[in-house]
Amino acid sequence: MSTVRAATAAAFKVLVSHPNVPAPALELLRSRGAETIICQSVPPSREEILQKVSGVDAIFWAHYQPLNAGILDAAGAQLRCVSTMSSGIDFADVPEFKRRQIPLGHTPGVVKNSVADLAIGLMIAAGRHFHAGRSDIESSQWKTELIDWRMGQEIRDSVIGFFGFGGISQAIAKRLQCWDVAKILYHTRTRKENDCEFKAEHVSFERLLQESDFLVVAAPLTDETRGKFDAKAFGQMKANAVFVNVARGGLVIQSDLHEALTKGLIFAAGLDVTTPEPLPADDPILKLPNCVILPHLGTQTMKTTIEMSLLAANNILNAIEGRPMIRPAY
Amino acid sequence: MSTVRAATAAAFKVLVSHPNVPAPALELLRSRGAETIICQSVPPSREEILQKVSGVDAIFWAHYQPLNAGILDAAGAQLRCVSTMSSGIDFADVPEFKRRQIPLGHTPGVVKNSVADLAIGLMIAAGRHFHAGRSDIESSQWKTELIDWRMGQEIRDSVIGFFGFGGISQAIAKRLQCWDVAKILYHTRTRKENDCEFKAEHVSFERLLQESDFLVVAAPLTDETRGKFDAKAFGQMKANAVFVNVARGGLVIQSDLHEALTKGLIFAAGLDVTTPEPLPADDPILKLPNCVILPHLGTQTMKTTIEMSLLAANNILNAIEGRPMIRPAY
Repeated sequence: MSTVRAATAAAFKVLVSHPNVPAPALELLRSRGAETIICQSVPPSREEILQKVSGVDAIFWAHYQPLNAGILDAAGAQLRCVSTMSSGIDFADVPEFKRRQIPLGHTPGVVKNSVADLAIGLMIAAGRHFHAGRSDIESSQWKTELIDWRMGQEIRDSVIGFFGFGGISQAIAKRLQCWDVAKILYHTRTRKENDCEFKAEHVSFERLLQESDFLVVAAPLTDETRGKFDAKAFGQMKANAVFVNVARGGLVIQSDLHEALTKGLIFAAGLDVTTPEPLPADDPILKLPNCVILPHLGTQTMKTTIEMSLLAANNILNAIEGRPMIRPAY
Repeated sequence: MSTVRAATAAAFKVLVSHPNVPAPALELLRSRGAETIICQSVPPSREEILQKVSGVDAIFWAHYQPLNAGILDAAGAQLRCVSTMSSGIDFADVPEFKRRQIPLGHTPGVVKNSVADLAIGLMIAAGRHFHAGRSDIESSQWKTELIDWRMGQEIRDSVIGFFGFGGISQAIAKRLQCWDVAKILYHTRTRKENDCEFKAEHVSFERLLQESDFLVVAAPLTDETRGKFDAKAFGQMKANAVFVNVARGGLVIQSDLHEALTKGLIFAAGLDVTTPEPLPADDPILKLPNCVILPHLGTQTMKTTIEMSLLAANNILNAIEGRPMIRPAY
């Protein structure tokens, strides 16, 4: 074993695109022979990346900037593999990686726990007026004495619907097993074999829209899912529905969501992702009392960030050492 | 049976202290012989209550104003029973009811579901920077590019502590059974016999403070619990601790909590209850980035409000019909 390890652990260079990648991942890479070249700019400078990437064996891509032919060309023909430190890879030109046969890894799976917590937080915060309630306090409009003031939606006895039923949706469904929900529905192209573990039922997109009291979007942004939640979709939802998006802003036509929230076609929304990001401070969606908005904090816990960084490092080490990546992106 | 019912259903008068009590409760009272006298002022006017209460057989108390000898005197000697439509009864002079031997009911139990949802929402909202994150967007400080920005606390692998382990705490503990928490601790005067249902461990107040990653306060406000969470208590808590209060503001010395949050003695707080209520718009606690604050929305769902109103009506009907109240307050 030690002979094999020694043979595979020949020195190799890894570009790390951000200075704040957690130390355990850098230590792991170095312990297996990596020389780490760490970009220092925050926000990342494409110029610095293009300059430092030249001649490396691997790239540890730690942010959401375009990962495309320009980066691969600047690296050079010796480049052996790349891993992002993200679940979604909508910023990567996957066909270009395929064409060049360069392994590309990413870090789904480990993000599910922190995103699932946040999604349930958004279901409750949106369903129970967390944003409007605080605004009421700040504007001296706290109506203690109205019995039917700021009435919200309970999760108990509700139909919970998921658009997408991968790791994140399943982690949410798992957490809700003891909440006495009425039903769990999900829409995906094909039924998931393990859906019975979560007492979840595979339904059409139309049924998902028509029956969900809480509808959670947790699916990749692809050509097929882009703009899926538009005026037509919101028009089919229940007036008491709470809409939550923890995936990517691009799955939603945000102006249509704005209109649905304004007209009361749906009850409220909780968004961890928006179009664009960062969202401008004067975006009209920030004016809505029934919309809870976060600056893409889904994976922002130290536990999950370390797990993501270690998975990205292991994707790279596997490829360098001649094994398949743990989580290949194609 | 019908003879008994007819005998007990002699006409009686019920004062209802608020015009927005849900219709199902009023219909129930009327179907059993009640003439309902409904106060119309919002916010409730003590003058109107004192005037209309004279000569009634029962009082349906639907808000949090002082319920004391003044009200009982104004009603008169024929008064047979009172029920609040609330779980906490810190606004009622219970010794005065005992002295006069007037049955007093309240509505604990049914509030647990909506308060438990809200409490978990506050755990996540406070632990994951929901307030600061929104402020970041509104002030154009969304730091997309910092990997270690707005890092929050996950519930997985955390120690969840409860001060009080009645219906609300147990409803929260039940909901967290599938969240892979490390441990559930609780502090009460005496061990709860059913704690094994929730895999919960009875501990001292000191251990609760020292070991909890999330500490949820859900206990009645009494002489014993008033001001229990003071500088000394916060000083014993973990620096990563998230403190949640869904009980009453009076259990907390709010200026001490403010200092603990400012100095970083604890990580964050989520409050559905404050001192005073309504909280003035210029209260210093509203300035803290790590404090999520709601205007006492714990029971504000239609499902729970109807359940509370029906329980209050049934407390009154039981007393009028010569049976013990379902939920007596003493």
